[in-house]
Parts: sequence; C-alpha cells; structure tokens
Amino acid sequence: MGNILEQLISEQLAEVERQFAIYGNGVAAIIPAIELKNKIARSLLKQEPLKVKLGLDPSAPDVHLGHTVVLNKLKQFQENGHTIQLIIGDFTGKIGDPTGKSTVRKQLTNEEVIHNAKTYFEQFSKVLDMEKVELHYNSKWLSELNLEEIIKLSSSITVARLLERNDFSERYSTGKPISLHEFFYPLMQGCDSVELESDIELGGTDQHFNVLMGRHLQEHYGKEKQVVVLLPLLEGLDGVEKMSKSKNNYIGVDDAPNDMYGKTMSITDELIPKYFDLVTDLSLVEKSRIKEELKLGKLHPRDAKMFLARRIVSIYHNEEEAEKAEEAFKAVFQRGSLPNEVPVIKWSGDKELPIVELLVELGLQKSKTEARKMIQNGGIRINEVKVNDIYLQVDTSEEPIIQVGKRKFVKLQIN
Amino acid sequence: MGNILEQLISEQLAEVERQFAIYGNGVAAIIPAIELKNKIARSLLKQEPLKVKLGLDPSAPDVHLGHTVVLNKLKQFQENGHTIQLIIGDFTGKIGDPTGKSTVRKQLTNEEVIHNAKTYFEQFSKVLDMEKVELHYNSKWLSELNLEEIIKLSSSITVARLLERNDFSERYSTGKPISLHEFFYPLMQGCDSVELESDIELGGTDQHFNVLMGRHLQEHYGKEKQVVVLLPLLEGLDGVEKMSKSKNNYIGVDDAPNDMYGKTMSITDELIPKYFDLVTDLSLVEKSRIKEELKLGKLHPRDAKMFLARRIVSIYHNEEEAEKAEEAFKAVFQRGSLPNEVPVIKWSGDKELPIVELLVELGLQKSKTEARKMIQNGGIRINEVKVNDIYLQVDTSEEPIIQVGKRKFVKLQIN
Repeated sequence: MGNILEQLISEQLAEVERQFAIYGNGVAAIIPAIELKNKIARSLLKQEPLKVKLGLDPSAPDVHLGHTVVLNKLKQFQENGHTIQLIIGDFTGKIGDPTGKSTVRKQLTNEEVIHNAKTYFEQFSKVLDMEKVELHYNSKWLSELNLEEIIKLSSSITVARLLERNDFSERYSTGKPISLHEFFYPLMQGCDSVELESDIELGGTDQHFNVLMGRHLQEHYGKEKQVVVLLPLLEGLDGVEKMSKSKNNYIGVDDAPNDMYGKTMSITDELIPKYFDLVTDLSLVEKSRIKEELKLGKLHPRDAKMFLARRIVSIYHNEEEAEKAEEAFKAVFQRGSLPNEVPVIKWSGDKELPIVELLVELGLQKSKTEARKMIQNGGIRINEVKVNDIYLQVDTSEEPIIQVGKRKFVKLQIN
Repeated sequence: MGNILEQLISEQLAEVERQFAIYGNGVAAIIPAIELKNKIARSLLKQEPLKVKLGLDPSAPDVHLGHTVVLNKLKQFQENGHTIQLIIGDFTGKIGDPTGKSTVRKQLTNEEVIHNAKTYFEQFSKVLDMEKVELHYNSKWLSELNLEEIIKLSSSITVARLLERNDFSERYSTGKPISLHEFFYPLMQGCDSVELESDIELGGTDQHFNVLMGRHLQEHYGKEKQVVVLLPLLEGLDGVEKMSKSKNNYIGVDDAPNDMYGKTMSITDELIPKYFDLVTDLSLVEKSRIKEELKLGKLHPRDAKMFLARRIVSIYHNEEEAEKAEEAFKAVFQRGSLPNEVPVIKWSGDKELPIVELLVELGLQKSKTEARKMIQNGGIRINEVKVNDIYLQVDTSEEPIIQVGKRKFVKLQIN
C-alpha cells in the first residue's frame, strides 16, 4: 500500500490532501499520518468508503459538548462519504464491575443497554446522519470468545506494556491494586477493531493506549492496521478541568437554548479558538478567519463568544432558537449596565442559601446586618434584578451575577 | 468445620494423628496444617475419601525419581483410602506456546496427549494402584470457559499478586518480557481445583504459587479450600541441582536395574536420608532407624546406599532384579580393589574423546606421550577393566571410574 499515492492522478491527489486537511484540523494526533493519506487514497481508487470507528460506554448516555468533539470529527468523515461504525460496549456493560467495587461500572440489563443506545442515537442525530451510521453491539463477538482464543490473543501483549498505561503504572507504583480483569478492557476494545476491520478509530487523548491496542491486535491477526485519530479533551466552563457531568462544568446537547447560550458566554477567552475548532461545524476557512481576527484584535472576545454561542444553539436546536437565546441574553446582560468583564468567584459552598449569608461569605458585605440594610436600600441585584426580599434563597447552581451598589459585580461559578 | 476434631472419639483422633504424621513426613510445607487435620477428621466421620489432586504436564512423560517424591506421597494417601485425582493438563498442551518461542511448550495433538497420558499411567503404576486413580483431562472444562467467566475469575486476582511469583518478579524487574497469557497458567491450574473440588493438592516447592491459586479460586467460588502439600525438590546425582532430564543427573523409573542401582550408589552421602524419606516406600519407623544409625555412625554410608539402591530397584523392578543388580555392582566395584571414597572430577568437556586426551585433561598424566606409555604398560583401568587400546574412545556420559596405577582413582561426573 506504500506507493498508493503515486497511482493517483493530480485531481485525486488534491482530494486526498483536501480530506486530510479537514480530518487533521483540531486533532491532537494522527497515528500515523501517512497511513491516513494512504487509506483516503485507496478509498478514492477503489471507490470504497473507509470504516471509521467510535466506541461508546453504554452506561453514560448523557451527551455534552465534550463528546461532540469526536462527533464533529465523525461528521467530517461522514460528509466525505465514509462509513461510521458506532460500537455500543454492551459486553462490558452487562458484566459491570465483577469486583462490585466500582459504582461507575454498574451491571446493566439488556433493556438498559438498548435504552441507553437509543438515547445516544437521539442525541447523536443532532450531529450525524444516523441513517448512514452502522450500529454494533460488541457482545455479539466478545461473548463468543473462549479461553483458547483469549490465550492466543493475550500472548501478543506483554504485562510490562499494559503496565505502561498511565493509570496502571501510577497505581502499580503506588501499590494500589489492579485487578487482572482490568487488563482485558483495552484488549476487548482492540478486538472490536479486529472484528469490524476498522480503518480508523477516534478517541480522546485519554484513550491513547486503548485505541492503539486495536492497531496492535489487527496486526497480530494479519489485518490492515487502523489509523488512530486522537482528539483533544475539551475543557469545561471553568477553563481548567475536562468537561464532564461530574464536574458540573458542561454544556449538555439537550440543554435549553438560553442555558446553552449563557453557558457558552461564560467560557474563558482563551478557550474561544479551541471551542470554534472542536465544537462548531464551521469550515476551515471560517475558523481561520475568526481566529486570525481575534488575534489581531479586530474581533472582540465577547462578540466571538456570541457568534460561537449562536452557532452552538443552532446546531443543537435551530437558527431561530439561537437568535431568541441571543436576544434574551442581551436583554438580561447587556442592557448597558453590565461590564464586559465580570470577576468570577468560585463557589463550593451550599447549593441554596439565604442572600444575606451569601453576601457575607463572598466578602461583599461585612456582616449580615449590613447585608440586610443594603438589600433594604435597594443596593443588591441578582442577574440585574433588584433584590427586595431579605430572606431570598439564592440558587448558586445557576451561577448568578451579583451586583452590589453601582459598580461592584461578581459572578458565581460552581467549583 | 473448625471444631470437627472435637466430635471425634479417641480412636478416631488417634487415626487423624496417625495419618497426619504420615502425610507430613518429608514434606516441605502443609498449608495450613490444621485444615489437613480437619479434612482427615471429616473424612473419618463421614466415611468419605478425600480428593487428592496432582496436575501433570502432558508434554513430559519421562518419569524419574524426582517425580516419584510426589508419587510416593500420593501413594500414602491412596493406602489410607483416599482418592487420587490425576489431571492431564491437555488444554494447555494442545494450545502449546502461542508465541511460538518456547520449544518446551510445543503444541500437542490429541493423539500425543493420549499417548503421553498412557505413558504416565504405565510408569505411575509402579507406585500407585492405577485402578483406583481418577484420571481427568482439563480441556473438558477449560475449553468451555468464555470471556465473561474469565473476566469474573480474573477479577479476584491482582496484577501485583501475580507479579510476586518468583520467576515473574525476576523477569519483570530485569525487563524480560512476560506475555499476558502466562498469567493464565496459574489460573487454569486453580480452575482445575474448583472444578474437581479437590481437598488437597500436591506439588513441588517450585509450584508453591500455582497450587495456592487453587485455594484462592475455590474460596472465590464459595467452595471449601484445598490444603496445599508442598514437597521438597529432589537433588539429582550431582547433589546440587534439582533432578531433571535436561541436567542429566536423574534416575529414570524405566532405567535398567544395574543402571538404577549404580546411579543410586553415586549420590552424595548428605543426600542419603533425604532419598530414604522421599523416594522409598519404607515405614516411618524404618526410615527413622536408618537415619538414626547413620547419624550415630552405626551404619556406613556405603551400606546405607546399597540398601537404598536395592529398595529403589525393588520398587521399579522387583526384589530378584534388585539382588542381581547388587551382585553385579559388587562384582565390578567391590572386588576388594576400589576404595570407599573415590574423588569426583566434574566433567563438562566432550562427550566422547580419546583416552590419552582425557588423561591429560584430567591432569592424571602430564602429556599424551606419557599417557600412551602408561596404557602400554597396563597402568590404566576404566571401571576396573584394563585399557589395552591407546586409541580407545571414552564415553564420559557413563561417568566412568578411571584408575591410574595401583592407588589413584578418579570418578568422572558430568557437569
């Protein structure tokens, strides 16, 4: 396959380069890049779509923008005529955690697996054309594996290699137990690629080890090795941690338009280019233009974020809803009163608490008595609405903007 | 089960102690001893034989005295009415070494497995009553194991625990690869115990880790745990290395009577008590008497060895052959000429070489010329036979005794 690029006419070569540029945009790594070019070339020559694989955890069907990084990449492959293989990891889902220690890996029933798969499907349909997607349940082949096959399979892998995986090596060196069965998870993921003869597997950079296992096992079974496309992990609203439900720093694809818009507006400025790259469907040209203008100061970060927020709402709802969300946001936050930069205070206290307590804890008032006075004088606003009730309970999970007097603003952020 | 001993009448208690003393004689360890007593007690109370397991490697059916250490222990259990479970490890035998690197673990056909099992049977029948022995092929259950069961099984074992096994820890720490599939061998051995509900498993001290796995897995599956009886490894004729075919320091149970007798006579004096304990069928009382007399100098080591050699030949041939072998030995080695202690020279040179070269290399003659003269003068004997031919090729593997002149003796020993 090495010289396949030489067999192409110049138009095809240009097409290879065009696709390669799209797939390469915003990714953390392509392993190895030349093989991806060769595969695109072969697909053009033979008029055969490439098989692009993504494995899904059947126990966590709540999709947020962090997941859509990989979905958007899949969409690019789909738009160029390639076949998407979604694998529901139902085999491990049905086993659960055999040690019974992990609450994350709880055992799923058949009904739960199918329900979760359906939930994925609905959410993914906002990005992908699901009619063209192949759906596979890996129990189909994994439940058939017997000890002889497993021994042959595992003979191709050394214990030292498995212990190199970041989390394993850390646990081994600090004396935390690793159950033998945990070594099977990367192997099973690799088996899926062997079974489906995947050409490409996508995954976050935290999946590096596991997706490479597919390459290794395909080679062991004498098959063509898949190319691994690693995608960066998307930081959440806090700008630091990976977006995840447990960190409560996420934008869910099922979030209401106003929430989605408002949350997007709350990301840090540094993240704007990355969000454009990873969670919008804009063309490379448009993305480049925005990033360039931001860099040169031609585009204000606030305006860039508004554009970003509108795009995101458009994808997961529609243009009209996006516009409405923007109007609502403007009505609340931009009626000439709010400054462009509101200082943020991280909050890890109670979810709900009385306004006077909150003001004191945030250091915005010296005592509850003073806080009460300030409210009675009409000097406290939450999200620009004057607080009249001194017993008001504030829901901090809504991350309100609190205004004290005319010039002092603070935005709460859940920690 | 803890208090089962309290349920016994004094006669039964005495019987428990009697059996326990027999099984404990000459062993390296019983893990744990109290459980063995409990099991014997239960077997007496319920009139049920204990199931005593020994696993066999289907690829190495040449039985030597090293193997009989464990066979003699099995025999003691059999003589007390317990059931012997012999497991032919045909499952791993048929897989062979999946990496193809090991010549020891070559893949066996069904015919080879059955042929080797038959060979074991014939050789074991010299020690055990094979009609009362249960024979099992572990492929029967191991080939039925699927991935789900294997994952559940391996969830009970940590990687760190497996890496504690001596050979694994050494290889891991020195960077030598351990294939993942190698972790399965102890597990499979353990599965055999689960399947057969073995009460006791025997093994050499080098099997320590593997036989304990049976205990562990039985517990994991909620079964009564087997007791592990570890037997010392028998040093071979060199007095240093474990007896093994590859070290050429073994006495085969199929050796001819004269060879068997002669080889036994060549063991070092220090080994005499151990050989009495481990490879004869004498009673505890007889063994004690011999060891005591040896210690007190009442029994000459040479005479003890002759008794030992005669016993061994009696077991694997018969009394008559044993007597003949003793006569033959005396005729050659004790016709008043050989001293009791012949100095030994370790030989790691050519297997066959000319007598003159050998004499020079051993430092028995200063030059080939002198060696030739000495032969022509009738001054050289090999195993008491005068050498007439100066071109004689000596087979060193027969470990001959070489005599130079009247008083100088040397015994070759293959290194």
